[in-house]
Amino acid sequence: MEDRELRTLNHLMYMEYYTGGNAGLFMKMKQLVYSFQSPFQRIDIFEHPEFGMVLVLDGITMFTEADEFMYHEMLVHVPLFTHPNPKRVLIIGGGDGGSLREVLKHPSVEEAILCEVDPYVIDAAKLHLKEMSVELDNPKASIFNENGADFVRKNKDYFDVIIVDSTDPTAGEGGHLFTKEFYSNCYKALRKDGIFCAETEDPFYDKGWVAIAYNRISSVFPISKMYTGFMTTYPSGMWTYTIGSKELDPLEDYDEERVLDFGAPLRYYNTEIHRASFALPTFLKELTGQF
Amino acid sequence: MEDRELRTLNHLMYMEYYTGGNAGLFMKMKQLVYSFQSPFQRIDIFEHPEFGMVLVLDGITMFTEADEFMYHEMLVHVPLFTHPNPKRVLIIGGGDGGSLREVLKHPSVEEAILCEVDPYVIDAAKLHLKEMSVELDNPKASIFNENGADFVRKNKDYFDVIIVDSTDPTAGEGGHLFTKEFYSNCYKALRKDGIFCAETEDPFYDKGWVAIAYNRISSVFPISKMYTGFMTTYPSGMWTYTIGSKELDPLEDYDEERVLDFGAPLRYYNTEIHRASFALPTFLKELTGQF
Repeated sequence: MEDRELRTLNHLMYMEYYTGGNAGLFMKMKQLVYSFQSPFQRIDIFEHPEFGMVLVLDGITMFTEADEFMYHEMLVHVPLFTHPNPKRVLIIGGGDGGSLREVLKHPSVEEAILCEVDPYVIDAAKLHLKEMSVELDNPKASIFNENGADFVRKNKDYFDVIIVDSTDPTAGEGGHLFTKEFYSNCYKALRKDGIFCAETEDPFYDKGWVAIAYNRISSVFPISKMYTGFMTTYPSGMWTYTIGSKELDPLEDYDEERVLDFGAPLRYYNTEIHRASFALPTFLKELTGQF
Repeated sequence: MEDRELRTLNHLMYMEYYTGGNAGLFMKMKQLVYSFQSPFQRIDIFEHPEFGMVLVLDGITMFTEADEFMYHEMLVHVPLFTHPNPKRVLIIGGGDGGSLREVLKHPSVEEAILCEVDPYVIDAAKLHLKEMSVELDNPKASIFNENGADFVRKNKDYFDVIIVDSTDPTAGEGGHLFTKEFYSNCYKALRKDGIFCAETEDPFYDKGWVAIAYNRISSVFPISKMYTGFMTTYPSGMWTYTIGSKELDPLEDYDEERVLDFGAPLRYYNTEIHRASFALPTFLKELTGQF
């Protein structure tokens, strides 16, 4: 099948239209490797000549193998190095396994729960995304295929860290994960020094959702801080993440020594980046009311 | 003419192919406002429905009005706030006027020289890029239309700050501004506490040029530091800049008070961003050998 496609197609032009519909990223794909309409969303995996595999859900690029490390390291290690001893971690979304892979680099973690609503994403990742899915069968990991908002509601005072690795609020199941009710239930599911962290979109194409997500999270958690990271194949390349915390501050309670002693290899995150990522450009402070 | 174009065209699909040729940004343009083949390069100005005017040289996006502030503020204010009293500033390239506009926000500046090889870029900017070109007729500014590498060679011990606002090394005249000889001549053209700063490309699509530019600058200047900033419509959104300095350190000799007392409005740059921008992701430290 691969040979036939290569003979009949020069390349597939993939175009992702960003919010507003007037700009976006195009990628010349070598081939479509996997395509399936699950009960929740359309799942496509392409092979790109430079970026490796590319996962697309409902027409939105989730990552390319060439730069997913930027997103997964920033989403996971900022909260996990803020908490002094994370043992129980919940990941909501993230069926590809990239966030789980980063969480399990922390030796303190005893139990990592992945709550991914769509089992077909997990199956596709195991088949085609070897670098992402490497820890999906780790004995410390449990996988639940249910709605993340429902799952959180059933847990109280249990997790040290909750990570929201969701699709966009406007796509598929992502919308449930951007409500105040959901953030409140995450608060209750966390232990007394628990930390919540979510991806909160980009402030160039999706200004509105950045402000909404930050304001809702900060209305629930006593400590809330936005940080940014480069994510080179996401809209605008400028990605925001928001920490919500019950008592630990990601700058004041951050233990550099643990990072310096960390055994696992990291390609983006380091101690300087941890601190620097909380410095926000003036327009982003204004957008979110953080002064 | 405007009406006729709107009747006959739904939109113009502009696609910029990034290095490698397998990905890029597309923008649905409302119309082509200006197009001219100068002796140096092809100059196009488009109108975009969300981003305002978009300047394109030799098929490469120079900026959109919606996010040029990110680039121009980071290129100019990091070196100008590192120098305690910048009076004479040279801008090489930057015929659109955006860097000049930022330089002239500093009250200490007495003389700003813009050396733009292509007079047609300046003419086009004055006609169509009102927000960029606002200071091109400021009496403190002098404009020279000659090759930047030649201009620098004729000056010794004169400038406090030199800013290189160039096109890509592979496009048009940009290549002259990425050579070791050019950097050496900039060193000589600077006063004893002078500071050099150049845009040095993106480390996702243009890894090679990022490493070359940093290594050449650091072989000439005793103090050399790379910093990054978001630039949402440039390749990857992750832009690098490199400071070369004779004796002033952009972190140690930086005077926050001057920033806090600064009268002019800034939308990206602030004191936290100044410091944070020098924190580099691990892969970028490795790429440039900065440890």
